[in-house]
Amino acid sequence: MRPLLFALPGNEAQTVRLAGELGAEVGRTECRRFPDGETYVRLETPVSGRDVALVCTLDRPDDKLLPLAFLADAVRELGARRVGLVAPYLAYMRQDRRFRDGEAMTSASFARLLSRTVDWLVTVDPHLHRYAALSELYSIPSELVHAAPSVAAWIRRSIPRPLLVGPDVESGQWVRAVAELAGAPAIVLEKLRRGDRDVEVSVPEVGRWRERTPVLVDDIISTARTMIETVGHLRAAGLTPPVCIGVHAVFANDSYETLIAAGAAQVVTCDTIVHPSNRIAVSSALAQAVRRRLGREAVAVPAGTAAVGRV
Amino acid sequence: MRPLLFALPGNEAQTVRLAGELGAEVGRTECRRFPDGETYVRLETPVSGRDVALVCTLDRPDDKLLPLAFLADAVRELGARRVGLVAPYLAYMRQDRRFRDGEAMTSASFARLLSRTVDWLVTVDPHLHRYAALSELYSIPSELVHAAPSVAAWIRRSIPRPLLVGPDVESGQWVRAVAELAGAPAIVLEKLRRGDRDVEVSVPEVGRWRERTPVLVDDIISTARTMIETVGHLRAAGLTPPVCIGVHAVFANDSYETLIAAGAAQVVTCDTIVHPSNRIAVSSALAQAVRRRLGREAVAVPAGTAAVGRV
Repeated sequence: MRPLLFALPGNEAQTVRLAGELGAEVGRTECRRFPDGETYVRLETPVSGRDVALVCTLDRPDDKLLPLAFLADAVRELGARRVGLVAPYLAYMRQDRRFRDGEAMTSASFARLLSRTVDWLVTVDPHLHRYAALSELYSIPSELVHAAPSVAAWIRRSIPRPLLVGPDVESGQWVRAVAELAGAPAIVLEKLRRGDRDVEVSVPEVGRWRERTPVLVDDIISTARTMIETVGHLRAAGLTPPVCIGVHAVFANDSYETLIAAGAAQVVTCDTIVHPSNRIAVSSALAQAVRRRLGREAVAVPAGTAAVGRV
Repeated sequence: MRPLLFALPGNEAQTVRLAGELGAEVGRTECRRFPDGETYVRLETPVSGRDVALVCTLDRPDDKLLPLAFLADAVRELGARRVGLVAPYLAYMRQDRRFRDGEAMTSASFARLLSRTVDWLVTVDPHLHRYAALSELYSIPSELVHAAPSVAAWIRRSIPRPLLVGPDVESGQWVRAVAELAGAPAIVLEKLRRGDRDVEVSVPEVGRWRERTPVLVDDIISTARTMIETVGHLRAAGLTPPVCIGVHAVFANDSYETLIAAGAAQVVTCDTIVHPSNRIAVSSALAQAVRRRLGREAVAVPAGTAAVGRV
């Protein structure tokens, strides 16, 4: 039987694209809020015996967990074989230790909650800062999708003479990987500390790159502070207005408008979070990861085996 | 050691009142939202070895569960003896079965999530419609607070010649209990069905009650539809403008303004949800229930026993 996908509100377009790539069925749900602020969810497509995936990107996550948990519980109670989560953007990946006494380690708490809610997880480039793998946090199996090939393909297609730019040393590895896939050169900006407060950012070998279009890439654009600063440094160094690419278009407050006003020639993101800047589709890479996961689930739980409810 | 209470945002006043009644300490926290919509929480008061209660009323519940879970996890990880929840209003008590195929049973899912988040629960008059006790839903111990004595005391103190009014048969039992505690008479409105769509609501023995102030009481005022209709029936029967009392001031959309405009002389609620209509404090009854719970916890887990983390 074909896998069955359900979209949480706001994820309808991604779900349809993903189902197309996967040859999956898009199930129908009714999701709404009662006047008192509680959530109502109903599955309109039968799930019994089927492999189900819920599609829900997790930016602004706080009011998304309950609808997700309600739907996952209903899917399980109504006899689905397994229920997974496709979360193109995964939340709470930053607070991974107590930087100050008494802090909640939200990445661990959130991972524990999600791991109890669904049977497996597929996500795109999670912010694995201090973790080597998602399995250090999540107790359910997961598949990671890397956006770099899709980003590189877009650059090759759309930017004639690109120069990949990493805003700082931490971004270096990722930026060089995208550059290699795009067949383009890459530089990483250098911070020169002249005093306690006097930090100069220099563009290495700036004279070589005046004919190229700088392309800034980062995984998450949230406040866009680093990107806005970097755009400033590149403009000050006399380079042409840069193209800014982010995988995840979080864009807190008015950061998108501010980034454009700062002199970005174009702001481009992957479609992991719905946003006007979405230009790079990750559906095909997501579908491959879901197919891989379903294949492994099929080995772990042969068809016909009754689903085991969680306590 | 004195019990330690932490207020979730919006629950500060109730927490201070409750701590006063209990002789408990009010702990300090830092709770805020990052620009990207994720929550940050930090305990500023040490919790090691202490009995902790989080105070968080659960109207508009969807974005409250994660902050609560983060705080509860941090309290537990940092060595508290136990962590309970004082939720003056408890959410998701209505969807207790599948009225239509495929519906999520949110009351069961929510109870399962909360039962994994904290060790015990104290709440005021939960909407136990189809359940005999909270223990049918919640796997953690709970203590219920009944608002009826506080409501009755307020009526005795504030309304010279009250007549308690139940809008329908289902409300009868609760309304009669409040009436008895208030030493006042009670009536329950009767629906007379004259045809398919022709329902007349009559006020029994209306002539006897013209000198009295009708007092409508209900557990939750959400859309206020029933109360608005009942105010209309009482006015049509020639009674004086009624006082409307609700335990839980949910007040969806503009229902509070609509109820006043419909002809209520006064709208009065308990302070389980912060609202301009709050007149009846339940802190003292809440404190008794928390004290009872802490006493039972002390027997179950003797002081000095290390807290056992949940998996």
